[in-house]
Amino acid sequence: MTEQRHRVVIIGGGFGGMNVAKGLMRQPVDVTLIDKRNFHLFQPLLYQVATGGLSPGDIAHPLRAVFSNAENITTLKAEAVDIDPVQQKVILRDGDVDYDTLVVATGATHSYFGHDEWEKKAPGLKTMEDALIIRHRILLAFEAAERESNPEKRQAWMTFVVVGGGPTGVELAGALAELAKNTLENDFRRIDPADTRIILVEAVDRVLPPYPENLSAKAQKSLEKLGVQVKTNLMVTDIQDDLIKVKNTENDQVQEIKTQTVLWGAGTQASKLGHILHKKAGAELNRAGKVKVEPNLSVAAAPNIFVIGDLAFATDDEGQPLPGLASVAMQQGKYIAKLIKQRLIGQATDDFSYVDKGMMSIIGRNSAVAQAMGFEFSGFIAWLVWVFVHIYYLIGFDNKVAVILQWAWNYITYNRGARLITNEKSYNLIHKSPDKQPFASS
Amino acid sequence: MTEQRHRVVIIGGGFGGMNVAKGLMRQPVDVTLIDKRNFHLFQPLLYQVATGGLSPGDIAHPLRAVFSNAENITTLKAEAVDIDPVQQKVILRDGDVDYDTLVVATGATHSYFGHDEWEKKAPGLKTMEDALIIRHRILLAFEAAERESNPEKRQAWMTFVVVGGGPTGVELAGALAELAKNTLENDFRRIDPADTRIILVEAVDRVLPPYPENLSAKAQKSLEKLGVQVKTNLMVTDIQDDLIKVKNTENDQVQEIKTQTVLWGAGTQASKLGHILHKKAGAELNRAGKVKVEPNLSVAAAPNIFVIGDLAFATDDEGQPLPGLASVAMQQGKYIAKLIKQRLIGQATDDFSYVDKGMMSIIGRNSAVAQAMGFEFSGFIAWLVWVFVHIYYLIGFDNKVAVILQWAWNYITYNRGARLITNEKSYNLIHKSPDKQPFASS
Repeated sequence: MTEQRHRVVIIGGGFGGMNVAKGLMRQPVDVTLIDKRNFHLFQPLLYQVATGGLSPGDIAHPLRAVFSNAENITTLKAEAVDIDPVQQKVILRDGDVDYDTLVVATGATHSYFGHDEWEKKAPGLKTMEDALIIRHRILLAFEAAERESNPEKRQAWMTFVVVGGGPTGVELAGALAELAKNTLENDFRRIDPADTRIILVEAVDRVLPPYPENLSAKAQKSLEKLGVQVKTNLMVTDIQDDLIKVKNTENDQVQEIKTQTVLWGAGTQASKLGHILHKKAGAELNRAGKVKVEPNLSVAAAPNIFVIGDLAFATDDEGQPLPGLASVAMQQGKYIAKLIKQRLIGQATDDFSYVDKGMMSIIGRNSAVAQAMGFEFSGFIAWLVWVFVHIYYLIGFDNKVAVILQWAWNYITYNRGARLITNEKSYNLIHKSPDKQPFASS
Repeated sequence: MTEQRHRVVIIGGGFGGMNVAKGLMRQPVDVTLIDKRNFHLFQPLLYQVATGGLSPGDIAHPLRAVFSNAENITTLKAEAVDIDPVQQKVILRDGDVDYDTLVVATGATHSYFGHDEWEKKAPGLKTMEDALIIRHRILLAFEAAERESNPEKRQAWMTFVVVGGGPTGVELAGALAELAKNTLENDFRRIDPADTRIILVEAVDRVLPPYPENLSAKAQKSLEKLGVQVKTNLMVTDIQDDLIKVKNTENDQVQEIKTQTVLWGAGTQASKLGHILHKKAGAELNRAGKVKVEPNLSVAAAPNIFVIGDLAFATDDEGQPLPGLASVAMQQGKYIAKLIKQRLIGQATDDFSYVDKGMMSIIGRNSAVAQAMGFEFSGFIAWLVWVFVHIYYLIGFDNKVAVILQWAWNYITYNRGARLITNEKSYNLIHKSPDKQPFASS
């Protein structure tokens, strides 16, 4: 074939980008899928890696493996640093790729509300690396507490503050409580992990604000049953090496919590490519840096550039912004693949329309909240729904039967076999060294 | 209880040390198990982590979890840096621990035969960190080859040299061949992984020298069937950034192989604590730095210090040195636990006697060699034996049913789902950056 086929370039191999590529497998287009990492991440289970329940390999799938049998799809492990809509090129850190159609699906990261210096002290949970950093912080904190003889300092090692009462904060706090109170129950000789304090701070007046109020209340009750202290109406004002300062939004009172470990589950900040699309392709951004897209998910001023997933600011049929959910990104990805195929054969294309599959958040063992098809679920039923949906997607995705068994095993036994501290030195680069007391017998 | 109980300190949580502690669970002694890491490693499957078949969590078990219900066992994540046999103290990097009986089981690491500068270029496979480093090297080499347009340089990225034809070298070379020729078969667009060269170099005249000659020959044939080039009578004389030099031990001819990836499976060097025992407790060392032990595995000049596992130089009833096998370390560990219990109640103790369980080495799918109970096995039968023995130990150890299923799945599908590149920056500290060609479309 000498004629140049239509070239689709996709930046980002998350739920959005991967589904565009999947929809274009073995189609008469040349697809290049660019990702900084060599794997797709099943992000909904990332908190399990962070709390030692699962291993990285359990929730990741090499991108090359996904597309190994689709010759029209080239996977490129590279970092896109710029976009040139005039030349129709994506600029990589080491090269460039031409496109006819570009799909940008690079998602979002956490926002520290202008306090980027907090990142080192309060890691967020977006990437596999984040999960491993958090796992190391948590495990090393317990190790340090076991070695610490000063009671006040020991309590600071055993105090974990989770910032943000959204789904990430809630699942982290819940899993952390189970880790401390069940898994580690008998693991130490000088400390009692049951004394662990887990504090979830949220700036508004309830956890899981996107849910109806009664589900938020149920989620809070479930967390409290697990031993998590839920504190609402609190804004973080400062994070220091061994403490966090929070301000009550109602009476402006500032409170100090002594802690060695702060985990960040608040705020969302769109990927930097949003700003590049703004500068180079005239894309309009919202306050969080998300790209406002047309009804067909394209950039108004550049109709052959599409933005999907967490980087896109799209609205539903009633003008309400779509939430940052995997199901939104997946549907958008499939839609774009279909649109590209239709355009190629000159068919008319419909606008994107989101089919609301509901949403759910896991809190802990036997406990979740869910909202779907006009129904609300909570407790054990919601938990079952959550488990089945995730098993369904995991199996469909990579036949991760082993993960499901591991999970079942962990559930029955409270086991968290992946609570390993590896490559400690490299993590220590960002982890403050525990202020260990000398261990001396007598 | 006000009376001080007998204090046993064990350094090292491998097969030897862990079995001492297991044998002393809920006995009237106070045990402190010291390890730098917080997990026990199922080392026989480490090559699977290195080649992306399994995740770290699959072959590791947190030490605290093993002993969580044995209150007399304290796990201490710490590094032992010195031993004081006069004061009966183990000196940690940050503290010290008193002992009445000391068991040193810190094993061995690779030896670079006086060329420690090769370590950075040719990582060995002893620890979990080693396995992750090797995994990153291998995966990044293929990524670099895909980006490299100069054919000679590309071939250097696709050439892997494994040094040492012992069990580690053989299993690494075999697994690498399967990774390249089966798992990655269709994963790239510019290179054909079938062109991968895997060269196993061995200094003596055959692979797996501890085995009978006919099994060595069968192992070599199996490796060659997998596409591995087996080169014997070759000594490494130099390793540089992009090549390795080997000398034929018969005719002294020097040969250069252009390669970006050298993996080290040769040489054994006992842990540094051997030298400390030599200096402080008058222990005699052999050439590899192993501690010569009495028939009851104690140090002659310090009868309350025992050395077991790869750090010990012990002999069987016929005066032959015991091999560095997990089964030796396990039996020695159980023996020491029994001996301590017997001493406590004033019973006479027997000398250690090794029950030869045979040995086996896996080469690849369907292929292994084994020698046990006077029989020799090879090919599929040996492979089956290998699999069953390892399943037996894995299940007994931690109910790692998930691993076995993952393994079965990998076997059927040639899948290696754990071939992930994570935390790349930290590994890049020691990995030379691939000399990437700019990727440009057209």
